Amino acid sequence: MFIRRLVSSSRIIGLKTGRLLSSTCYTFSTRLAMANYQAVQVGQEYDFSYRVYFRNQDGPISPWHDIPLFANEEKTILNMVVEIPRWTNAKMEIATKDKLNSIKQDIKKGKLRFVHNIFPHHGYMWNYGAFPQTWEDPNHVDANTSCKGDNDPLDVCEIGYKVGKRGEIKQVKVLGVMAMIDEGETDWKILAIDVTDPLADKINDVDDIPKYMPNFLEATHNWFRDYKIPAGKPPNQFAFSGEAKNKQFAMGVIHETHNYWRDLVNGACDDGGMNRANTATTNNNHKISTDEAQKEIDAQPSCQSPASIDQSVNKWQYV
Amino acid sequence: MFIRRLVSSSRIIGLKTGRLLSSTCYTFSTRLAMANYQAVQVGQEYDFSYRVYFRNQDGPISPWHDIPLFANEEKTILNMVVEIPRWTNAKMEIATKDKLNSIKQDIKKGKLRFVHNIFPHHGYMWNYGAFPQTWEDPNHVDANTSCKGDNDPLDVCEIGYKVGKRGEIKQVKVLGVMAMIDEGETDWKILAIDVTDPLADKINDVDDIPKYMPNFLEATHNWFRDYKIPAGKPPNQFAFSGEAKNKQFAMGVIHETHNYWRDLVNGACDDGGMNRANTATTNNNHKISTDEAQKEIDAQPSCQSPASIDQSVNKWQYV
Repeated sequence: MFIRRLVSSSRIIGLKTGRLLSSTCYTFSTRLAMANYQAVQVGQEYDFSYRVYFRNQDGPISPWHDIPLFANEEKTILNMVVEIPRWTNAKMEIATKDKLNSIKQDIKKGKLRFVHNIFPHHGYMWNYGAFPQTWEDPNHVDANTSCKGDNDPLDVCEIGYKVGKRGEIKQVKVLGVMAMIDEGETDWKILAIDVTDPLADKINDVDDIPKYMPNFLEATHNWFRDYKIPAGKPPNQFAFSGEAKNKQFAMGVIHETHNYWRDLVNGACDDGGMNRANTATTNNNHKISTDEAQKEIDAQPSCQSPASIDQSVNKWQYV
Repeated sequence: MFIRRLVSSSRIIGLKTGRLLSSTCYTFSTRLAMANYQAVQVGQEYDFSYRVYFRNQDGPISPWHDIPLFANEEKTILNMVVEIPRWTNAKMEIATKDKLNSIKQDIKKGKLRFVHNIFPHHGYMWNYGAFPQTWEDPNHVDANTSCKGDNDPLDVCEIGYKVGKRGEIKQVKVLGVMAMIDEGETDWKILAIDVTDPLADKINDVDDIPKYMPNFLEATHNWFRDYKIPAGKPPNQFAFSGEAKNKQFAMGVIHETHNYWRDLVNGACDDGGMNRANTATTNNNHKISTDEAQKEIDAQPSCQSPASIDQSVNKWQYV
């Protein structure tokens, strides 16, 4: 009943006590046909304490291990976890090494990481996130890129018009993929579109994108190529001369990384530091109880209003 | 003492009663050498009721008539009223026809107006606002543009890196000007930079802008040319083939429109529907008492949390 109320109203409720919090502390609910997912903040946004945990109707879950990759039987619609809404800078990601794999802000050189604004862009130019139940296996050298996997869930750029929310579970269809090489590691960037976007019926493969969104693919390539340059890094490289591969190729990458994840969570390979604890996935040796999962969340600090963001995050960089 | 506390703490305080409001209702204070300016919200953001009024240390003021154009004796630093922070879409502007000239959202065809996102831009690409004590006289045909003034205060694009706040008074130096022709009216767009920006010492005239911000002037021109096309309007035209004129030329426009404003507020010309009421400007026939000004503000609805913005505002337009 408590969960029901949270889910049905999207009210702003504290995770531990149900008390009303400031409007800056949010829970965000996604209703899907099969499950209700809820993202719940603890700690302070833009602070080291910040985490976004996930629940389904039965209790805490891992967004990486416990949300199904495929959202329909035909496997044509996929669930995507939004980590970084379009037009924002905070580099938030699923914490693969933490129990329950909450979303937290990446840290570089002891500082919370914000990506630079590459003129004329504002932050990320898509809703950026990850496919659950996928893993870019660092033990596998990809035949296309000649590089090992980057040890993360598969990245997704959702190109629809709606700005997502951090922790939202979007249902998307796959359009293509770019093969970025990030500091010597394969880092596939899947291109996808929210199935509720008006263009989702018209854009069926990567070649359809320029018909409705001219220059969008070039801008995407250039963004990924350049976005680390202001931090003193070289331009990122790409396989296939930077061309986006089509939907069929992308689906191959997805199935492959889904299998790597299955091997990971089934314990058939070394965990590489990954935290495999889950509450809702069958046939694996890393299942934990709802009580144990709840204890992990209860140990976190309460939600607070966001820390202020330094104006330096708003600078445009010309590369 | 009450004002003092507001100004010194930037606390979130209701205008009428001093009671604590939700964090979404703000007052914003600007401390300057000569005065403290405070922007105070009433009504609901993204609703017809929304207004931002202004006060100085003595009480309510008109941001158009009562904030001095020049911020130093040498007239090299100017005060700018921020109406639209960078990367936002809500078309907010000084209400020239309303008593006290609060900032409110423009209305087109009965709907609150949001500008479209012209790919790859997010909302406005500068802090956009107005110079106080200026007026583009609709009775005057400009020799350069052969068009009448647009009956508004002079527009300013502030190009520094800090994202402004609505109602902030920025101190800026002038760099140049573009002569836009908007539906047959002269609509100068002054280019300026926040004097506290690290580039303000290096960028002294319009020709210096590309040295530090490559393609920024072209993007600015294209933005103004295209931004009304998604609403079914033709591209905006420009005098001088769209080239930005230099600082000296821009200062000429500023002094000219400052004189038109002086004639307006001194009553030497028809008011054209403009509201000339002011509380702090000397030598004019439209001064009102602080009490009368306060009554105008007290008649407004209390501040409420913002209305939600429809996701359609987030669409990218390809022109």
